[in-house]
Amino acid sequence: MDILENVKISLKEALNRVIAEDIIAGKDLPPFDRSAVDGYAVKAQSTFGVSQFNPKKLEIVNGPIIGENQAVEIWTGNPLPEGANAVIMLEYGRKINAKIVEVWKPVAPGDNVSKRGEDIRKGEIVVKAGTRLKPHHLGLLAALGFVAVKVLRKPRVAVLATGNELVEPGKTLTSEQVVEVNRIILSGLCQQLGCEAVDLGIVRDDLEEITSRIQKGLEIADIVITTGGTSVGIKDLVPEAVNKLGKPGVIVHGIAMRPAMPTALGIVQNKPIIVLSGNPVAAMIGFEVFAKPLILKMLQIPTLEIYALKAKLTRKVSSVLGRRSFLRVYAYMENGEFYASPVRVMGSSILSTMSRANGYIIIPENRGGLEAGKNVTVYLFDYLGGKEDV
Amino acid sequence: MDILENVKISLKEALNRVIAEDIIAGKDLPPFDRSAVDGYAVKAQSTFGVSQFNPKKLEIVNGPIIGENQAVEIWTGNPLPEGANAVIMLEYGRKINAKIVEVWKPVAPGDNVSKRGEDIRKGEIVVKAGTRLKPHHLGLLAALGFVAVKVLRKPRVAVLATGNELVEPGKTLTSEQVVEVNRIILSGLCQQLGCEAVDLGIVRDDLEEITSRIQKGLEIADIVITTGGTSVGIKDLVPEAVNKLGKPGVIVHGIAMRPAMPTALGIVQNKPIIVLSGNPVAAMIGFEVFAKPLILKMLQIPTLEIYALKAKLTRKVSSVLGRRSFLRVYAYMENGEFYASPVRVMGSSILSTMSRANGYIIIPENRGGLEAGKNVTVYLFDYLGGKEDV
Repeated sequence: MDILENVKISLKEALNRVIAEDIIAGKDLPPFDRSAVDGYAVKAQSTFGVSQFNPKKLEIVNGPIIGENQAVEIWTGNPLPEGANAVIMLEYGRKINAKIVEVWKPVAPGDNVSKRGEDIRKGEIVVKAGTRLKPHHLGLLAALGFVAVKVLRKPRVAVLATGNELVEPGKTLTSEQVVEVNRIILSGLCQQLGCEAVDLGIVRDDLEEITSRIQKGLEIADIVITTGGTSVGIKDLVPEAVNKLGKPGVIVHGIAMRPAMPTALGIVQNKPIIVLSGNPVAAMIGFEVFAKPLILKMLQIPTLEIYALKAKLTRKVSSVLGRRSFLRVYAYMENGEFYASPVRVMGSSILSTMSRANGYIIIPENRGGLEAGKNVTVYLFDYLGGKEDV
Repeated sequence: MDILENVKISLKEALNRVIAEDIIAGKDLPPFDRSAVDGYAVKAQSTFGVSQFNPKKLEIVNGPIIGENQAVEIWTGNPLPEGANAVIMLEYGRKINAKIVEVWKPVAPGDNVSKRGEDIRKGEIVVKAGTRLKPHHLGLLAALGFVAVKVLRKPRVAVLATGNELVEPGKTLTSEQVVEVNRIILSGLCQQLGCEAVDLGIVRDDLEEITSRIQKGLEIADIVITTGGTSVGIKDLVPEAVNKLGKPGVIVHGIAMRPAMPTALGIVQNKPIIVLSGNPVAAMIGFEVFAKPLILKMLQIPTLEIYALKAKLTRKVSSVLGRRSFLRVYAYMENGEFYASPVRVMGSSILSTMSRANGYIIIPENRGGLEAGKNVTVYLFDYLGGKEDV
């Protein structure tokens, strides 16, 4: 899937962008043996046996170190003078005059010296293509002399909500209306993955309207995500619209999972369409399971970009046999131990529980639930909490 | 520390911003009992005993449900008609004509109904002040009718690098020069925390220059961070500069930790100054330990915003007694178990190891090291890896 072109951008703007090519070191780092501290370069053997009670006077010279009792004043990053093999830190020497320094701490060969190539060897791959650039990667690239890098263009993801009952936030509602919340949630999830989210608005449950709006999404974006209008039942307007738009159309519809069972996946005009449930919780889980891996693949990122941990389940949970269950939990640390507290779900589209949970666990399809105390893998979508936040 | 003013911004731009006030629900959600699915509202008892082999015909009506054998066509989000207490999903009914629907799946009272206030009760705090807004919080706020929210202004952090040997990335280097990398690393870390990073440039090891540049930082930023020029030894130009700028000046200098031992903390003109080592690894750890909690405190965020997990140490590591050690590791998941592989450090300022590590562990000051196989807490600063990435 080489859909995303490369763009060259300033290193200063590259945080969280995905690098498009392997970065190979063009030089050794350090480029020569150099001092890691401010101090005095010496032959290490000059210092053997010295101590606070037995200090030694060394002659300060400028050039190479020839004699056993010579030292060269040196600053962090300076090349080690010829003949020297260690550096005494400034605070372990006392300059008596311009020509003499007294030292009282022995050094071994190599002490306080950064060896040529010890950090990076010329020819080594230092950052692999498909790496999302974090601050430490930027530092490494800067050290190698880069001021600009090739990154992948941000994927554009168009997000459409469908449903007669839906209205934009902030409007006064009639009793038939519900505020549409999926677009802001899904757009935020897209942005967190480094995508540009394109708002396709809200459409009514009307086949023609849905079809033409998805078509618009296909024209301006790399991926189209819809919510609502899919139920693996009678009223499957969105899958119908996807099929109308071209071949192969819908390739998967209905997944043995819970929530997000009515999710459908399609391909039209060589672009993926992800048809999510209108239920915000199901839409969020469907995004995590289907849209996120797709986006990472498009960005050529080899990992799943997860924050995960093992935690003790604080209470028993049940699930439906034959369905893989994604259960929201609040994961927290207490006295150095990790716990996962299942968020109590009372209804079908519980926004408030989404706000209390910071992760989810997966209950396999061959289990009817999990006992309290079981060690489970939690996938975090927000920071780890503290006990007091429960 | 009420340093950061509130600013009102559009909800659409509020991702990752920190909300400035408790959000109290102004209404119940749902505002009335409503259908969670498309289907037929009924009295549940009308369906008792039905099955695929024993379907039942119900009369479709418009108004309230009076009789046991009546049904009202209903869509997701619609208020439940008077007299109904459950909803049969569309796919479990077959409309025979405009007046008759045949159903074959029994429902219990409450099935497929979202009860008034079951999601959110009027008067409840739904998002606490000091919450960093994630996509799910935005959805919740949208559902409550918010289109704008009060968030805290982004903290401004000024970053200064000091050192005669340092030059900007991209310049041709003499043998005395080293590329300055700390500013791009620390600026990136600040941005990840939602700060605005201000670049104060590079200054030479000159007391006057350092002092005037820090003063400039104090004028334009909320926090000043410096790197280099601190060694708990002779050449402590930056702490000296901080003390010149006012009282109390440096309040801590030298920390029993490794790396980042020469870190100093100061307060001048009521603003914090964090004096970090020039070593990029030490600067990064110093930022994590001292700058991050300060920034979160300024943002009034009560948690430490960590991603942490327990993992098995893959090999023995040693540390210095009397110093708290921060050891970089590569944490990965293999067959559902977590491992932490200590990154081998060969020199003093190893940029390449920063790029290989995705987290760190803490070895307490009363331990000389940790055995292989020990279960350690890993704090992640990048995503969890896979075994193949080691």
